[in-house]
Amino acid sequence: MRMTDVLETRALDAAMGAARVAVAARIEEALAQYSGNIAEAMRYATAGGKGLRGFLVLESARILGVSDGAVGPAAAIECLHAYSLVHDDLPCMDDDDLRRGQPTVHRKWDEAAAVLAGDALQALAFELVAGADMSAEAKVALSLGLARASGVAGMVGGQALDIAAETADRPLTLDEITDLQAGKTGALITWSATAGAVMAGQDPAPLRAYGDALGLAFQIADDILDVEGDAATVGKAVGKDAGRGKATFVSLLGLDGAKRRAGDLVQEACDALDIYGDKADVLKQAARFVIARQS
Amino acid sequence: MRMTDVLETRALDAAMGAARVAVAARIEEALAQYSGNIAEAMRYATAGGKGLRGFLVLESARILGVSDGAVGPAAAIECLHAYSLVHDDLPCMDDDDLRRGQPTVHRKWDEAAAVLAGDALQALAFELVAGADMSAEAKVALSLGLARASGVAGMVGGQALDIAAETADRPLTLDEITDLQAGKTGALITWSATAGAVMAGQDPAPLRAYGDALGLAFQIADDILDVEGDAATVGKAVGKDAGRGKATFVSLLGLDGAKRRAGDLVQEACDALDIYGDKADVLKQAARFVIARQS
Repeated sequence: MRMTDVLETRALDAAMGAARVAVAARIEEALAQYSGNIAEAMRYATAGGKGLRGFLVLESARILGVSDGAVGPAAAIECLHAYSLVHDDLPCMDDDDLRRGQPTVHRKWDEAAAVLAGDALQALAFELVAGADMSAEAKVALSLGLARASGVAGMVGGQALDIAAETADRPLTLDEITDLQAGKTGALITWSATAGAVMAGQDPAPLRAYGDALGLAFQIADDILDVEGDAATVGKAVGKDAGRGKATFVSLLGLDGAKRRAGDLVQEACDALDIYGDKADVLKQAARFVIARQS
Repeated sequence: MRMTDVLETRALDAAMGAARVAVAARIEEALAQYSGNIAEAMRYATAGGKGLRGFLVLESARILGVSDGAVGPAAAIECLHAYSLVHDDLPCMDDDDLRRGQPTVHRKWDEAAAVLAGDALQALAFELVAGADMSAEAKVALSLGLARASGVAGMVGGQALDIAAETADRPLTLDEITDLQAGKTGALITWSATAGAVMAGQDPAPLRAYGDALGLAFQIADDILDVEGDAATVGKAVGKDAGRGKATFVSLLGLDGAKRRAGDLVQEACDALDIYGDKADVLKQAARFVIARQS
């Protein structure tokens, strides 16, 4: 590793670590007065992740000079993401026992607690946006974007396509799987990356181009990890997609093709941020991290 | 029935019918561009209800002179309520096959579709608030209130208490069941009743007193219906609570005591609205309807 790479990685690690700490504190503050198994499951479900989405919110806000107040939306997107994982893991969905190296919520508690904790985490996400310290206009724009990115037009719609693909009579095409990803994971990543511009009332186009490319690269990297990773490092079951004969970016592009495509997307993501000069270095490094990660 | 009662009932029927039509049109507009089983399940789940909550939003807005724009929050609360029913009916929760006289969503489609349609309906609720035609400040206040009323501090928290009560070693006390109800159904009814005041930037206290009393009366009436109603009219299974040996307002107060308490609460709800003069007549009639209803 070159010295500049080492320094860049350290800057990214520091920024992501600081984001995780700030987000965790905000979520804990919001849940502090609640006890019982649902509140416990909500804390459990929001712990232990990489915090990429919350980091994107905070970092895009920093670049646009609106860091104050950004921790609310950063915590919101992590709650939203956590809810989606809790529901995706349910027996009637992906039926996973392991998440981030720990038992999934329905395994640690039960299915009813998992449904309810997920539901309450979604509500908490919108509470954190509405309660954030910024103009009402910015909060409405963030809330509207979050609702669209997570609903039938976004994450839920993508998840439904994913489920439908499992029983379809043919594997998905590259266009179809790209659409599916854009909804399932892309929309919330783009929401996170553009949050700073939305808060600042600035043109979100450069951050949207970054977020769209980053989201797709992220999913391709996930598919590569499903082939190359090991469960202990990844923190969840691997090799599931190939085992199911499901189309993935790797099955459609080949392993080398998928890696090339992910690399091109990361370059595209970085280029989109040139307008922000070296203020965007950490976001660019985050894009490179997404395809280099082992989990 | 006295002539004034007949006229009052007609005014209420007309107002509730108009609210249902306006809310259904707004939801259909929001979902018009979406196809697939999730969008279909969302339409299905929001159809056929009484629309009490949406009516309360529109009627409180009318009293406060802010009818324009109120259809967004009215549609929002009906989506939120519909999501809660879809998830409550799941096998891991109440395990119900019948809702509003029709198969529940997980019966008509499957559990995954029910989880996802519920999730997307919650997101749509916040989209409808954020996209409503009113000031950003009003939308933020409504969104914050909706998130709190539906999350761990409100509806989900109440539902969790309800589930915990089923396996507790003793039946709930009257105080406990009142707390449970205030979360599970009361918070969203009060949000609906106060929406007009929040939109108008007026003191919500009278409408809050009305909503709190109405919500509790509504739950007591539900418990009475569970004993006295028949499944065909109620549109869902009845007699379930007694069959489970579960504490209800009827088991704690007796049938006559429960009816008296509901009647007192309706009076309390009506008295709270005297400040609005005869503009509040339809809301008062709605309170009387809540304990007179057969389903």
